[in-house]
Order: sequence, then structure tokens, then C-alpha cells
Amino acid sequence: MEIITSVQNQQIKKAKQLLEKKYRDETNTFLVEGYHILEELKETDLIVQVFVKQGCGVPNWLTHYTLVSEHIAASLSQTKSGSDVFAIVKFVESKNVNDRRVILLDGVQDPGNLGTIIRTAYSFGFDSVYCSENCADIYNDKVVRATQGALFHLNIQRLNLCAKILELKNKDILVLGTDVQGGMGLDSFLNQDCAIVLGSEGVGVSSEVLALCDKKLFIETKQFESLNVAIACGIICHHFKV
Amino acid sequence: MEIITSVQNQQIKKAKQLLEKKYRDETNTFLVEGYHILEELKETDLIVQVFVKQGCGVPNWLTHYTLVSEHIAASLSQTKSGSDVFAIVKFVESKNVNDRRVILLDGVQDPGNLGTIIRTAYSFGFDSVYCSENCADIYNDKVVRATQGALFHLNIQRLNLCAKILELKNKDILVLGTDVQGGMGLDSFLNQDCAIVLGSEGVGVSSEVLALCDKKLFIETKQFESLNVAIACGIICHHFKV
Repeated sequence: MEIITSVQNQQIKKAKQLLEKKYRDETNTFLVEGYHILEELKETDLIVQVFVKQGCGVPNWLTHYTLVSEHIAASLSQTKSGSDVFAIVKFVESKNVNDRRVILLDGVQDPGNLGTIIRTAYSFGFDSVYCSENCADIYNDKVVRATQGALFHLNIQRLNLCAKILELKNKDILVLGTDVQGGMGLDSFLNQDCAIVLGSEGVGVSSEVLALCDKKLFIETKQFESLNVAIACGIICHHFKV
Repeated sequence: MEIITSVQNQQIKKAKQLLEKKYRDETNTFLVEGYHILEELKETDLIVQVFVKQGCGVPNWLTHYTLVSEHIAASLSQTKSGSDVFAIVKFVESKNVNDRRVILLDGVQDPGNLGTIIRTAYSFGFDSVYCSENCADIYNDKVVRATQGALFHLNIQRLNLCAKILELKNKDILVLGTDVQGGMGLDSFLNQDCAIVLGSEGVGVSSEVLALCDKKLFIETKQFESLNVAIACGIICHHFKV
């Protein structure tokens, strides 16, 4: 079996370009790395091409792949410890779901936070994560890694948040906006179907979006008024878990 | 008032060296940036020196500071957006607290996770965060930023985790080890004084440490067996909040 050893190889060049949003959007594909996330792709039809570092293990369900040298693998990896497998993957199409528990994100720009929120929402049985246009790109490599593969299973869409909130309200979904300024404490809500709106770390949910929400919700703390947005999301998802 | 404009200035050189653990440990000081974290230092006696970018605001309680040029401020900042104020700060001495709610960390190495855990533990009224020797350095700039200043208020110590667990047990504190393999679900615990042990993202709590715990605890999820460690900590701290 042939092994790619040159960084000038066209396949490798194209794979590396996918670290830039521009090329991702042009090709509707992105790059992932690591065995864990590859396993999460097993049941999907999203894989375009897999690269395996020579001498490393190959999952038995994987029939087509390209071997690359250690040097190439190191050049593709965005992690300190490096990875043995990489895959070019198609963008995840929005899924036609019956929304019952939903997260709406208003300008969450930290990739780690966005990825962790997607992972957490999936863990607790939420159906969808809707992102405003000014959220981080969900195919950014840090976002993808932090999701641990959850982005392949959830319905995730980037859209106009206000329009989505109105649509959810028309379907009688209770829309709750998080607000450190007040509202109802989380513990006073029953576990029920709902859409939770979380905002950016610096600013929170914008006043325009907050005005559309049915109720405001806050998490009671002893010190500090605000929590990290991913932590707040975790506590709220746990409270409203399916 | 004099303005430092040269990166060769000895004060600036020393400040920059504090981005390395070696120099932090030699001087028992570290570097912080941003107005928010400076405010958290207001009531402490930890500030050694403050640098303010020329033309930027100075808190009215701050009587001594050094002006620096824009160029110097940019060279000191570890954030994309930059900062207007910086401070050299003394290491936070361990506080003599009566431990009632405690977090114990076994090898949490991601700086963002460690900082967020410290912030969250403080938010929910926990007394101490104890870190094993192989956790990330609490004075790493990413850790410090993620704490949002909580590290100045909590008791934080780096120590032998097993010895600390035995000490807490001798004081009749219930020690709960998190374990994705099983144990009791979080929801079956009453809100009570306790010490929670959380492990590294990859490996979890080590078997040696887990064996010392009074009980094992897990968070019930619908999908995936494990949560990000900071998210797990957030949900647990919220459950056992003061």
C-alpha cells in the first residue's frame, strides 16, 4: 500500500486547507482527528477520506483509507499530543427533528465553550442546538474536538435566532432566556420541554433576543453573579434532562 | 509621569518571564491582566506592581502604577483582544478554612478546565480546591483568566491527594469519588457537606484515589457516558451548593 510522505501531496494540501473556514465553506467538508471521533462517524455516511499514520491501528469497520508518514500526521494534527487518524468529513446536514428540548446560542464565540455545549446538550438528550450567525464556526477544529463527536448526532443549525424563537413559540415551546439580572431561579422550574437561550460570556443574551423570551431564568450562586456559559448550560441541561 | 516604551526595560522583562512556571516559582509571583481580575485584587494585599497602558482608565482605588506604551501592553497580553492593565501578583497563600464543601482534583491538566472549576467552586460557596501534583499549574495564565479572579478568594492548595482524603475522612467529611463506571447517581444524594473527587478528562479518578473514597458518584446522562470534567464539576457543585 502506498504511503504519502510529502507535504506537497495534493490530498494533504487539501486536508490542511480545511483548517481555514474559507476552504471548509467552499467544499462543505472539514477535518477531524483521533480514534474517538472517528468511531462516532461509524454509523454515518459523512466520511470522505481517512488518513492513517503508518504503523497505527485501523478500526475493523474501516475499509478504505490512505496511509501517511509520521511527518505528515504531525503536520495535520492540531493537538499537542498528535493523532494517528484523520478524516475529511462532510458538513452535518440539519436533521428533521421534533424539537422538545433545545439550546439557542446568542453569540457564543469561544470554540471550547461552543463544543462543550454541543457535547453536553447531546449527553442530556436535547434535540437541537441553534447558533446565531455570530457564534464560532461549528467546524472549527477546537469546536469539533470539544464536541467529542456529538455534532454528528444532534441537530445543529446556524440561523437567525429571533426567527427561530418565534417559530418555537408558535409550536408552544416555552422559551427561557438566561439573565444574570434576574428572573426565576432555575430550581423553581419543573423539568419540562423548553428552549434555553444562552448568551456570550462578555455580554450575555442580547436585549433584542431576551425580549422575545417567555421567561427569564437565572442560576442561584453564592458568590459572583455569572458562571462560565458552558457551565451554566451544563447545569441547565442537567435540570431539564430527558 | 514616565512611560515605559522599551521591551528591554528590566521591569517589563521580569513581568514577561512570569509567563514561565520556572520564574513564577522562583519569585512566588505571577502576572494577571484585565480590569475584571484587577478589581478582584482590590481587597487583597497581593499586588506587587500594576502596569497601565497609556491613555487607559485607572481604578480610583489604585494609587501606585506604572504607565506603559501600547506596544508594551500588546507584548504583555496573552489574549487576542489585548488588555489595558496588568499586575504582578504574589502567590495566594493557602487559607486556614474550616472545610465543609471541597473539590479534590486528580490530574486535571487542561488549564481552561482547572480555571473554570475554581471559578465554579467559588460561585457555589465551596471552601477549598485541592489539586494533585500532576494538575496544571494554578498560576498558568489560562488558568488564572478562567478563574475570573476566584483564585484570590478560595483556599487552593497543591498537595498529596491521598493524604488529604484521609485527613478529610478523619474529620468525618464524606468523600465522594466520581466514576463513570457506576456508583450512586447524583440525584440520590442529599445536599450536604462533602468532598468531591474529580479526575482527568482522559483517565478519570485514578483507582488508587478512588479506593480511598467513601462512595462513588456518577451523573446520569442519556447519551455518552462521560461529561467534560468542568461541566461535571459544575453540575455537582450546583447540587451541593451552600
